[in-house]
Amino acid sequence: MRRLKCTIQYDGTGYAGYQVQPNGLTIQEVIETTLARMHKHPVKIIGSGRTDARVHAYGQVIHFDTELAIPPENVVKALNTLLPADIRVRSCEEVEPTFEARYDVVGKEYRYFVRREENAFRRNLSVHIPYPLDLERIRQGMAYLVGTHDFSSFCVAKTETDNRVRTIYEAELMTVGDELVFRFQGSGFLYNQIRIMVGTLLDVGRGRFAPEDIKKMLLAKDRNVAGVTAPPHGLYLWEVFYPE
Amino acid sequence: MRRLKCTIQYDGTGYAGYQVQPNGLTIQEVIETTLARMHKHPVKIIGSGRTDARVHAYGQVIHFDTELAIPPENVVKALNTLLPADIRVRSCEEVEPTFEARYDVVGKEYRYFVRREENAFRRNLSVHIPYPLDLERIRQGMAYLVGTHDFSSFCVAKTETDNRVRTIYEAELMTVGDELVFRFQGSGFLYNQIRIMVGTLLDVGRGRFAPEDIKKMLLAKDRNVAGVTAPPHGLYLWEVFYPE
Repeated sequence: MRRLKCTIQYDGTGYAGYQVQPNGLTIQEVIETTLARMHKHPVKIIGSGRTDARVHAYGQVIHFDTELAIPPENVVKALNTLLPADIRVRSCEEVEPTFEARYDVVGKEYRYFVRREENAFRRNLSVHIPYPLDLERIRQGMAYLVGTHDFSSFCVAKTETDNRVRTIYEAELMTVGDELVFRFQGSGFLYNQIRIMVGTLLDVGRGRFAPEDIKKMLLAKDRNVAGVTAPPHGLYLWEVFYPE
Repeated sequence: MRRLKCTIQYDGTGYAGYQVQPNGLTIQEVIETTLARMHKHPVKIIGSGRTDARVHAYGQVIHFDTELAIPPENVVKALNTLLPADIRVRSCEEVEPTFEARYDVVGKEYRYFVRREENAFRRNLSVHIPYPLDLERIRQGMAYLVGTHDFSSFCVAKTETDNRVRTIYEAELMTVGDELVFRFQGSGFLYNQIRIMVGTLLDVGRGRFAPEDIKKMLLAKDRNVAGVTAPPHGLYLWEVFYPE
């Protein structure tokens, strides 16, 4: 048996999220069904983590074991032939049998795309914000999020985790084409953390919060003090980091 | 009655084309239904021309008459609230009651998008070409299309037009992000003309035709000598030109 690590891209629009669940088709289910067709038996995949319904991935990472003697580059071709067009395999490589796509993660990058104009082609791929935004205020607010903090105010209140301390290494507001992109790199993120941070930063950008309110929110450790959860379809799991 | 001219953007993926027809939902039908809701009576729209199933528009132009005393900028807002997200109104202005979106056209620009890599997000918005392309050969072939020619070899054989002479003012191969874009500006185009020109130019790019074969194809005035019709989903009606 060889262990393969694949980097996957998907448009989450048509899916009920990454992880198999009873209500609706999921990314994991479609990939496992496709691998079962290739292998003539069930194949289990492990992803780096979940993504919610309508959330996208540019660089989700999965692993699975195979007895097939196919070179990894041909696994890419075979999967891309069999998978639906909204799930693509970007790359595949053989890894040590001890590699774990979920437990070995040392960091992740998420990006959140916001567009200022109506756009029929981006309707499911970025979030339309029709009101004016002060980008300098957003950048000031974003800076407070960088570092090691308890992010209790920026995750779903009922998150089942003892430890809500996480480290954000980089937080940046970029312009890509005519869209704004919130880029976050960190050790790991709590449930809905990126979407709540972005929802709050958009409120900073339109003047509902002051940039320095972000600092107060972090200290409050209370979900009720932060802003709304931004919609899922602007969010992309962009990259997953593993030890070299 | 005032006459309004609107510039429309649409993702053609979910539609059976622009023009109302019995089999499948069309762009025209959806806009007319929406205008009927606004007006409480049927409203007819006239477009600059048709687009086929799965073909997109960045700048389709339509006109219609209205008795409503709404400023044009509010027509944009009202329509974008009522229309599905894959059809957007980019702008609206009041025009002379003699303006005709179809008959007044003096030129059009089409763009055709081709991507070199697998991309889940662009699956319906550009055409994936996995084989290598020699861009210099494509540019050489493209240059033969500029000017006034009989384009019989580059339109559907049964096209019901006496006159297949058209003028291409500009033909350009551009790079936009990581995609290739074929840009054509001309007096008007025959049925499937852009898609047949692009299909043939892609064959020039991969070495199946020589660039100078384009010149011979124009002279032959025979659909059978040109290349295949490129798929619809790479094509965008980009802009429609009217007299100043």
